[in-house]
Amino acid sequence: MWLFNDFPKDATAAYGFVPDAAWLDKARLASARIAGGCSASFVSENGLVLSNHHCARSCVQQLSTPEHDFIKDGFYAKEPKDELTCPEMEVNQLLAITDVTRRVNEAAKGLSDQKANEAQKAEQSKIEKECATGDGLRCDVVTLYHGGAYHLYKYRRFQDVRLVFATEFRVASFGGDPDNFMFPRYELDVSFLRVYDHGAPAKTTPFLRWSAAGPKAGELTFVAGNPGATEREATVAELEYQRDVALPTYLLRLAELRGMLREFQRRGLEQKRVSTSELRTIENSLKARRGRYEALLDKSFFARKVAAEESLRARLSGSPALAQKYLPAFDAIQKALDAYRKLRKVYFSEETAPTQSGSLLRFARTLVRGTEELGKPNPLRLREYRDSGLPALKQALFSKAPIDDDLEIETLAFSLVKIREDLGADDPFVRKTLGKDSPEELAERLVKGSRLKDPALRKALWDGGKAAVAASKDPLIEFARLIEPDARAIRKRYDDEIEAVLKRNGERVAQARLEVGAAQRYPDATFTLRLSYGQVKGWIENGKPVEPFTTFGGAFDRATGKAPFELPESWLAAKPKLDLATPLDFATSNDVIGGNSGSPVFNQDLELVGLIFDGNLQSLGGEYGYDGEVNRALAADSAGVLHALDRIYGATRIVAELRR
Amino acid sequence: MWLFNDFPKDATAAYGFVPDAAWLDKARLASARIAGGCSASFVSENGLVLSNHHCARSCVQQLSTPEHDFIKDGFYAKEPKDELTCPEMEVNQLLAITDVTRRVNEAAKGLSDQKANEAQKAEQSKIEKECATGDGLRCDVVTLYHGGAYHLYKYRRFQDVRLVFATEFRVASFGGDPDNFMFPRYELDVSFLRVYDHGAPAKTTPFLRWSAAGPKAGELTFVAGNPGATEREATVAELEYQRDVALPTYLLRLAELRGMLREFQRRGLEQKRVSTSELRTIENSLKARRGRYEALLDKSFFARKVAAEESLRARLSGSPALAQKYLPAFDAIQKALDAYRKLRKVYFSEETAPTQSGSLLRFARTLVRGTEELGKPNPLRLREYRDSGLPALKQALFSKAPIDDDLEIETLAFSLVKIREDLGADDPFVRKTLGKDSPEELAERLVKGSRLKDPALRKALWDGGKAAVAASKDPLIEFARLIEPDARAIRKRYDDEIEAVLKRNGERVAQARLEVGAAQRYPDATFTLRLSYGQVKGWIENGKPVEPFTTFGGAFDRATGKAPFELPESWLAAKPKLDLATPLDFATSNDVIGGNSGSPVFNQDLELVGLIFDGNLQSLGGEYGYDGEVNRALAADSAGVLHALDRIYGATRIVAELRR
Repeated sequence: MWLFNDFPKDATAAYGFVPDAAWLDKARLASARIAGGCSASFVSENGLVLSNHHCARSCVQQLSTPEHDFIKDGFYAKEPKDELTCPEMEVNQLLAITDVTRRVNEAAKGLSDQKANEAQKAEQSKIEKECATGDGLRCDVVTLYHGGAYHLYKYRRFQDVRLVFATEFRVASFGGDPDNFMFPRYELDVSFLRVYDHGAPAKTTPFLRWSAAGPKAGELTFVAGNPGATEREATVAELEYQRDVALPTYLLRLAELRGMLREFQRRGLEQKRVSTSELRTIENSLKARRGRYEALLDKSFFARKVAAEESLRARLSGSPALAQKYLPAFDAIQKALDAYRKLRKVYFSEETAPTQSGSLLRFARTLVRGTEELGKPNPLRLREYRDSGLPALKQALFSKAPIDDDLEIETLAFSLVKIREDLGADDPFVRKTLGKDSPEELAERLVKGSRLKDPALRKALWDGGKAAVAASKDPLIEFARLIEPDARAIRKRYDDEIEAVLKRNGERVAQARLEVGAAQRYPDATFTLRLSYGQVKGWIENGKPVEPFTTFGGAFDRATGKAPFELPESWLAAKPKLDLATPLDFATSNDVIGGNSGSPVFNQDLELVGLIFDGNLQSLGGEYGYDGEVNRALAADSAGVLHALDRIYGATRIVAELRR
Repeated sequence: MWLFNDFPKDATAAYGFVPDAAWLDKARLASARIAGGCSASFVSENGLVLSNHHCARSCVQQLSTPEHDFIKDGFYAKEPKDELTCPEMEVNQLLAITDVTRRVNEAAKGLSDQKANEAQKAEQSKIEKECATGDGLRCDVVTLYHGGAYHLYKYRRFQDVRLVFATEFRVASFGGDPDNFMFPRYELDVSFLRVYDHGAPAKTTPFLRWSAAGPKAGELTFVAGNPGATEREATVAELEYQRDVALPTYLLRLAELRGMLREFQRRGLEQKRVSTSELRTIENSLKARRGRYEALLDKSFFARKVAAEESLRARLSGSPALAQKYLPAFDAIQKALDAYRKLRKVYFSEETAPTQSGSLLRFARTLVRGTEELGKPNPLRLREYRDSGLPALKQALFSKAPIDDDLEIETLAFSLVKIREDLGADDPFVRKTLGKDSPEELAERLVKGSRLKDPALRKALWDGGKAAVAASKDPLIEFARLIEPDARAIRKRYDDEIEAVLKRNGERVAQARLEVGAAQRYPDATFTLRLSYGQVKGWIENGKPVEPFTTFGGAFDRATGKAPFELPESWLAAKPKLDLATPLDFATSNDVIGGNSGSPVFNQDLELVGLIFDGNLQSLGGEYGYDGEVNRALAADSAGVLHALDRIYGATRIVAELRR
């Protein structure tokens, strides 16, 4: 997960190739980010963007109607005019990176911890403002090495993004949850988008030329993408907290939710339709976190983390100055986590859970709290209500996405049951919220009595501000008002006593690592562009080799005709026309993690040979460290994508554009 | 959890009372065991037995009809003739304990591990046979200290057990899952049974006289009961396996099942009725195991376990003879658990899961395997098919309990999904079982196509033996036959490579402890009678005292009228007649665990002052060790029980018998 401005010169020398600055610039400019949490790449000079189906899934869903279900049937714009605008999508192209560490640090010189933090934030805002001079530019100061460095990322921002092509959901997620994070895999998780500029396809050079041949086993592969977050620099105390508290707690919640949703789907087709996307998200999250959990339970893995920290502490202890400066940070982190262990149930129940209890209560919370926060100066607001976050917040609050009553009721009731479970039936907050109701009754009363399903009402309340929200008799608004004082009180304690302490002391540990030369050569992931190298390669699983390629033929062999192993009609119809030996998916040793979905895989000639959609089970432990023996990135093969576009989908217009 | 034949003389001296042999004999004879997994006591000379409602719940359910739902309405036999026979209940009274350690060990002298094991088993059978001379006697050789000692337990066995009284389920489990293992609590989890002998109430002296006054704060209390199983003598490797693998895996399964069942209940009243008991069992198990899990995650608790084992190993290392004899056992246990880590998913999926996938597949497994096993000599059979287990096996197999199709389908589908998840969609066992079906379709086809719901068919197949089962075309029998070879193969590996190694080396560790004087002064629980002392006492929770008593008034305050905080009609109607200050439940520092449900609490005068129904959350960690600071047993107050019998239930006949 190397920084583009700090790629180690010798890293790929063993492969007989050393990228130069021009090569790195091209690779950077041909890569893209989907602001909602994915990666992508430019694959033509006319703004054509390649990403995963699951990265465009919400757009595909939003464009669907009862008459045209593009989730089920897929999408292909035969003519340029058929390309449809994605209402909530933004694509970023990274134009430049500037190191601004000195400037940010100087702003804080000589100030106390809290003042320093504020001064640095102000300086970062200033730097971003100075940078974002033109229309269509986006500038972010990125905190690297947990505060060890600050870099300014300057992006070209595309907000007119249109859907060109999407496979059917069935083949995009062929194998469903059982095959998720597994290999061999047989899915075609592909979408094409196009960025527009002033109503016409944007000019996008450089771009990655499409390799009709695809990659070869053992070939050197690069992946440029935006890994979301890693915790490879976490302290042992933080890892223990993850292993013993955070992950098991969250996994148990997800498992119960999954049981509920799977059974909810069994009520009928409509219930299945409205909950499929959420169930998939929960199952994906459950599997990903289970992988992380198992990585932390691996004794030898954890022992290495402990040994590394002990070695760092020993080196710090060797110098009285360093010891005094840095060692207390480790204890402070441990203490904050001990405090969090005591606080966490209250914090989760009163502050977090109401944002995870269905859409309607989340709207109510946003309205009640947001209209209050907007009355304050920007820097004094809770972070999710600061100006920088408002576009995303409004997009969610005013969304026209449909809301299902039954699912809302079940989700809210689930949450209320959990709150009572965590705090106990005698807890004042529980008594205040539930009163004499059962969770199921309260949830039903709140959801059925509320009119917040109407986006216009939400808009009116938001625009009406604090007074309008205070005057509302909507039962969910009333409920959100009822819990607000408790939620704010525990939020403040969390922010001051836990989060701030962890952040401040995490920075100190990061600086200590840099100071004694024990830092990783690349910083933890921050959903910014990174370059990874690797090669097309299987691995050994339980003593048996896993081959790096799968084929179209394998997909047909695996299909049972029953979910989640159903191939779409288009595939069944096209089978006679297909060369079944054509590669479909492949594995590489590149280091990827959530956020890398949609990343291009390319070779040393900057030819696109694949499209990352996932990693194997072992790669989930990549949250805490990369193990080249078994961690594998999974990608769709460029030859396979082309074959499908040509023979299955008849997407001649795209094929021609890719071959141009 | 002291043995009655090894109660430490000085244990209660600080309370100014030292029980003598006559006192201990009376206490033992007045205590009882319900063979299905509970404890009880004799409370009159005419065979009246006190236990929990939840210990008699299956009988109450079996006696109910659509016209008389005793689960909902409770039960009271106004006249002796109204006492109804519980079809599947057995009560045991412990007549004598004899130490037979020498005899069992001598049988094994000079033999190899495996031969020794067989010889010991044969000798135990012989001892039991010699003891069970008369009708109505039951004799068990109990393995204590994991093989450190063998005691012969001789019981009087009552098989004619009748239901006299049961509270309504609503008040027996008032507070439901939220209040389970919590205190303050306000439930009346009470049933009365009567043991009969040749058609008339049995004479049962000695018995515990009922204390109309109930216990006082600080008073010395004894609990005689049958704690089921503890792992206080487990090695660190075994505790780590529980903490890192067994408990999290099982908790995640239970959580998902819980989510499924709660949502299943939301389908309608009938679905709710048929799944309530199972949901309660799952929720109880989830909470109990979560408590154990959290105990093991407690760092200082675990560190004490590690320190104790290190100290034991250091003492063994001090003597070359002891080191050679015992130290390898620790490594052998670790190795067996490492092997189990690799085997466990296959073992669970192929061997265990089919017995946890609803009643019908369990019947099919029993029929397929049982008719095969019965063809072998008794000692060569799998343990659950040996002669000693057949009465219980047949009782379950021929049970007339109703079976709900929908619940069977959901449960079986759940299990099939999990098997695919654990083994992967490509696993040969998964391919063989699922074929081209989805788990839901296969489950539906098997359940709907099977006739195993009919107890007469099951009886016919069992009586028809191997040939009848082999000829059956019932789809569930066919399914059970299909998986049988895989299941048997992995069972054999588990029995030989894991279980046998853990047992043999567990005995060695236990002997090592005894040899260096590091054993606990009482053995791990074995569902046999133990005596515990303690006192009526609250505890400190989050810095605040928890008072040891609750009252009837508290129950009315807590009632919301909504499940699970609904009081039954009888209580609401009787409220004006009640003294609301009467104590209802109380807490003591006695050491209890699952199996102790229904145990009597009595004072030094052998007066019954309470009825154990539960422990607090902290007591769940009692699986691994007892902490007198916070572990509490929870009991119904004898004064409260009497008050309810008298004022709420008008159970004058019982009240008179208790006061006689």
